[in-house]
Amino acid sequence: MTKEPGLSNLDVDYVVSYRVDSKDKEGSIRQFKELIRVLAEVGLTSEVRTGDDTSLLVFVKAADEDVLAKVVHRSRMKDWLYGVRQIQPVGDAATALTNDPLTDAERHRQIYHMITGLREDGGAGITPESGRWKNVESVFPLHDHARNKKWLLDFAKKTFLTPHDLDDIKDAVGEKIGFYYAFLQSYFTFMIFPAAFGFSCWVLLGNFSAIYGIVNVVWCLVFVEYWKRQEQELSIRWGVKNVSVIQEKRRDFKPDTMIRDTVTGEDVPHFSGKKRLQRQLLQIPLAILCVVGLGTIIVTCYSIEIFISEVYNGPFKSVLTFTPVVLLTLSIPPTSTFLTSFAEKLTAYENYETQDAHDKAMTSKVFVINFLTSYTAIFLTAFVYVPFATILVPYLDVFSLTVKPFAENDAQTRAPTSESFSINPNRLKNQMIYFAVTAQVVNFATETILPLVTQKGKQKYNEMQASRAERHGGTSPTPDANDTPEERDFLRRMCIQFGYLSLFSSVWPLTPVSYFINNWIELRGDTFKLTTECRRPNPERADSIGPWLSSLEFLAWLGSVTTAAVCYMFSGSDDPEKGGLGPDGRPHQIKGWALLLCIFFSEHIFLVARLAVRTAFSKLDSVNLRKERSERFMVRRKYLEEAGLSDAVKPLGSGNEKLSTNATRALIDEKGDADVLGDITRSSLEEDARQESLTEDNMEPAARRFWGRQRTWRESEKVGLHLLEELEWGGAEGKKSK
Amino acid sequence: MTKEPGLSNLDVDYVVSYRVDSKDKEGSIRQFKELIRVLAEVGLTSEVRTGDDTSLLVFVKAADEDVLAKVVHRSRMKDWLYGVRQIQPVGDAATALTNDPLTDAERHRQIYHMITGLREDGGAGITPESGRWKNVESVFPLHDHARNKKWLLDFAKKTFLTPHDLDDIKDAVGEKIGFYYAFLQSYFTFMIFPAAFGFSCWVLLGNFSAIYGIVNVVWCLVFVEYWKRQEQELSIRWGVKNVSVIQEKRRDFKPDTMIRDTVTGEDVPHFSGKKRLQRQLLQIPLAILCVVGLGTIIVTCYSIEIFISEVYNGPFKSVLTFTPVVLLTLSIPPTSTFLTSFAEKLTAYENYETQDAHDKAMTSKVFVINFLTSYTAIFLTAFVYVPFATILVPYLDVFSLTVKPFAENDAQTRAPTSESFSINPNRLKNQMIYFAVTAQVVNFATETILPLVTQKGKQKYNEMQASRAERHGGTSPTPDANDTPEERDFLRRMCIQFGYLSLFSSVWPLTPVSYFINNWIELRGDTFKLTTECRRPNPERADSIGPWLSSLEFLAWLGSVTTAAVCYMFSGSDDPEKGGLGPDGRPHQIKGWALLLCIFFSEHIFLVARLAVRTAFSKLDSVNLRKERSERFMVRRKYLEEAGLSDAVKPLGSGNEKLSTNATRALIDEKGDADVLGDITRSSLEEDARQESLTEDNMEPAARRFWGRQRTWRESEKVGLHLLEELEWGGAEGKKSK
Repeated sequence: MTKEPGLSNLDVDYVVSYRVDSKDKEGSIRQFKELIRVLAEVGLTSEVRTGDDTSLLVFVKAADEDVLAKVVHRSRMKDWLYGVRQIQPVGDAATALTNDPLTDAERHRQIYHMITGLREDGGAGITPESGRWKNVESVFPLHDHARNKKWLLDFAKKTFLTPHDLDDIKDAVGEKIGFYYAFLQSYFTFMIFPAAFGFSCWVLLGNFSAIYGIVNVVWCLVFVEYWKRQEQELSIRWGVKNVSVIQEKRRDFKPDTMIRDTVTGEDVPHFSGKKRLQRQLLQIPLAILCVVGLGTIIVTCYSIEIFISEVYNGPFKSVLTFTPVVLLTLSIPPTSTFLTSFAEKLTAYENYETQDAHDKAMTSKVFVINFLTSYTAIFLTAFVYVPFATILVPYLDVFSLTVKPFAENDAQTRAPTSESFSINPNRLKNQMIYFAVTAQVVNFATETILPLVTQKGKQKYNEMQASRAERHGGTSPTPDANDTPEERDFLRRMCIQFGYLSLFSSVWPLTPVSYFINNWIELRGDTFKLTTECRRPNPERADSIGPWLSSLEFLAWLGSVTTAAVCYMFSGSDDPEKGGLGPDGRPHQIKGWALLLCIFFSEHIFLVARLAVRTAFSKLDSVNLRKERSERFMVRRKYLEEAGLSDAVKPLGSGNEKLSTNATRALIDEKGDADVLGDITRSSLEEDARQESLTEDNMEPAARRFWGRQRTWRESEKVGLHLLEELEWGGAEGKKSK
Repeated sequence: MTKEPGLSNLDVDYVVSYRVDSKDKEGSIRQFKELIRVLAEVGLTSEVRTGDDTSLLVFVKAADEDVLAKVVHRSRMKDWLYGVRQIQPVGDAATALTNDPLTDAERHRQIYHMITGLREDGGAGITPESGRWKNVESVFPLHDHARNKKWLLDFAKKTFLTPHDLDDIKDAVGEKIGFYYAFLQSYFTFMIFPAAFGFSCWVLLGNFSAIYGIVNVVWCLVFVEYWKRQEQELSIRWGVKNVSVIQEKRRDFKPDTMIRDTVTGEDVPHFSGKKRLQRQLLQIPLAILCVVGLGTIIVTCYSIEIFISEVYNGPFKSVLTFTPVVLLTLSIPPTSTFLTSFAEKLTAYENYETQDAHDKAMTSKVFVINFLTSYTAIFLTAFVYVPFATILVPYLDVFSLTVKPFAENDAQTRAPTSESFSINPNRLKNQMIYFAVTAQVVNFATETILPLVTQKGKQKYNEMQASRAERHGGTSPTPDANDTPEERDFLRRMCIQFGYLSLFSSVWPLTPVSYFINNWIELRGDTFKLTTECRRPNPERADSIGPWLSSLEFLAWLGSVTTAAVCYMFSGSDDPEKGGLGPDGRPHQIKGWALLLCIFFSEHIFLVARLAVRTAFSKLDSVNLRKERSERFMVRRKYLEEAGLSDAVKPLGSGNEKLSTNATRALIDEKGDADVLGDITRSSLEEDARQESLTEDNMEPAARRFWGRQRTWRESEKVGLHLLEELEWGGAEGKKSK
């Protein structure tokens, strides 16, 4: 129940880093006093230490377990009301922690909510780096170094993480990162098949094999659908299903009106949906800007590269070839940063009410930018350079300016005519190898190794700081200085990789082999980042990898188009026996209608297959799904039983009398069972009259007469049997009339 | 609260028609006795009358309102537990009917459940025409003739039904039929635009106009998405949202094993999902059978028709032209009935656990059969006859046998060569006119007028029967003899119509005009059928038009492909100025790649547009959605308030003392506010030691030391202010060290 503290963490739950504004000492002091006060108000104990020259660290823990228990109980009750928990939390707040102990992640999440949550939700309302809390630099939990070390050692030794490992990760850093690990793990495991198959194809069939292409598209499809199912299972296993329904209000949401809610009678902030839709239409110019901006840069650099490498034949060629690469490396990051910041502004302007909606809108914009920066070059090679190079290259003259200072004569920079130019058949393959191998290595180096080196230096500095802090406040747990890792960035990266695999891996079937190896390292690298290089993240709950899923679906779909196109256009181009490329360097004469027909069939077969795979997955039952259903059933049954509403029908005479007055009367009549039939005919008129005058119900007279004939079920039976005799009976019985 | 009875219905809630098995008198009597008994057991009063020569009618009503109230209360509680109702039903069973009166439909639904529900669910378990209840012919409510008459008069006078009318229909015959009416109404209203636009296009642009095509595709798309939204709104308005979650168990479900549920501890019937998946794979041969079976018949008849009308030029041509039509009319219905029964068997074999899953599986199979019977002929004309007739017609010789007896010489039956044959340019248009006008009129006649005529005769017969019954049982409400109308058939018909509109209306832009008129009549005809020709249906709940929605979506999508193809292939063929058809009778030289490119762009623009329209609709808020959210919010707030868990944070000193012992201590300390700082440094060691020995919590010593320094928030503040002074302060203040 009580948290097992890591040896060095001294029961610290959270750290608030407070950086003073050196220009406003008075304000800084006021804000600091306020900080300590609001933390106390929500029930958090604080302990202050010096951080570095201009910052204080406020170490925070729950004042006592009762305070925390109440917060936890409230949060769980809310989960239950939102349908996240099937079973209502029993008992009161005091027993909450005993009945269902907290994981580290849940404890951190609760404390984080106490610090940053809105005051009306029971939080202290501290918003790091914004508004009145602009001096609060950050709010973060401390690493559990013992467990981190265990993970690093453990994961390095095994090929596959077990479900238990994933649960462990989830328990420590929350479901959101848990989902990323689960995704990476599923992806890695699934990759075994295309890696093996790709290798075989590469050996036996070479590049551009249609068989590999088909298998790869199907694999991508099955993987995405499998993951969707897996997400569902995991969210049940981790008890976070429907957690996305609990929508966190966005702090920056700016309502344009307050409208009176007719049900609650309260004024609620509101922003007109139509107005938002109008603002969202600005996404179209943004998309155009992205396409034009990034497109121009990439197409220009690409053209220069082709010009230098395939047209120019003057001095310094080998050096000059790198010019466009350098240009690209220098121009793409700032452009993409500029566009991203623009997208951020637009998303903020779209003014979403919830954080989820905001993130989703942002992710879709980021996806467009990523898509353009990642795939434009290879799309150009496959669908512009190869089919149209002979037509387009003569126009590359315009780039002769770029090499003018180096060229010795005009001939060196003169573009060849359509006839004399032959395309570089290996360009596409080399590009793919670059993305599959080189880029991965470079990325890993810049993302993991480089920060490690810089961190070493920083650590030295931090140690000096820490020893200084030590003098003033005793043993203080060292907070880790770097930013928190974003599972969003991890997912973005995997999504781009999945794109290369789905769109172009038929160009070079060894792609999945390379990615398979890369992803093994990636997972360990990410663990290293998560545990050592960066701050421990604030745990968040999630029931999915979120909007990236749609990106994966889209890439799998697009893969069915590009793979068909690539396989058709290049099939046989790699096979020297078939003569390889045609006389003009192009693989063979591409027929427009055949290409389009290939694409048409491939895409529609893909869509039908997707429907089939989805249906199949949805039909398969699982232990988790069954468990969920049973729990729901139990909850309902228990409720109905408690409300005394679960009676099944009992036969007459077995205590069912209370159910129906009609039945009761029948039971009484049963003893003095006169000839009901005769009785009716004899006394019916008087009886009817008497009944009419006696009964107080509001039946109309005709109805009362109608229903008065057969007053008990036994009477109905009698009359019925009599009427039955009057019917036409076939067979031996014959017709029997009264 | 009490039901307003129609004048003639004498408070009868339901009628059970019991037809005796004339070969088994004894069994019939036994079963009848059983019937009366079980009805009494669930709390229903019965009154028996003779129906016709071999049947009895058991009129049924709730024994008293208390019995019904309990049933209603239980059902509403169940709705609440399943999330159909937001607000928990208050009070006990007795007040259920007072607080929230029953509509006719709800009353009927409850009584129907009492009669046919499973015994463990509180029903009598009567299953008409099956098992031990095979003599129970049917179970149905009586018409409310006054209201029916009012509807017929009312609807005949107005163009559009009001939302109030739809509510009225829903209140009388249940949500399922309510949804059909709402759909038809939305469809009819939406149709105004394409009807007006289509008429303008027909006048200004002629047939095969690309502009009309594009507008039509977009219209179809917007309509389907609008309807999806409308469905959502209606289901909130009618209080049936999520009602599809309450899955009715299928009676015919045959479990293969009983598995023990780990949560409930009960044995539950189970059928392996994998086994079902295997059985579902049989759908593939079924689909092939449908395509081959129906395909062969249609293609053969179609070819014969072309042969006779365009090749044969002997005697009796005008008569013989009708041969294939007759053949088709004779062969399609039995084939399609055969295939449908086959599909029914397969669906039963697939052994679904719930009625919904079963219906969905069946609908998808029916859709395939309908699709083939409805659209194959026109597809053949557009995509086989027009582009390939010149190639294929010479092979039609084989059909010369069909006219051999009539032909005078071989020349009359000899197919022309490719060069001499010219296609009939009006075939496609005529076919479309047939589907848009002729077929609708014929359908209306056979479905509405014909039964009316036959019913007149039947009525005569019934009257004779009734007068006979009268002799034995007084005034008896006449049950209506025909089968209940199936909202399913209505929807199927509208779905096929929507298909013609979406797929081929660009062939003849007057199509929507014709459908607009037709649907006005159709709605009135359906009302007539519902109220007069057929039995009153058993009301059912629904939150959607069900699987037909996917069919509409599919047809809208397919429309983007066919419209593009038709518009490209035939554009200008109707325009005499452009020379009309080419020399070979074909519109113009169709280029494969251009056609495919047209289709490719049209389809993908459609998909992007669909995404945009969906997003736009999902972003728009509505009164119903807001109401739903508010209700949910209220429920949660009320619950949390009742559980005493809704405290927002209160400032220190305003009764928040109980929240945090730390804060309390601070408030006490506040009075005797000594120099905490000095205090700490002076007595810290002794104090630490004392604390360590005294406190009983399980903190480790280092942690206790760490947290012991600053024991109240006021101490933390003091220490913090002191540390703040030590930081590096820029600006005028300068660095100030202690």
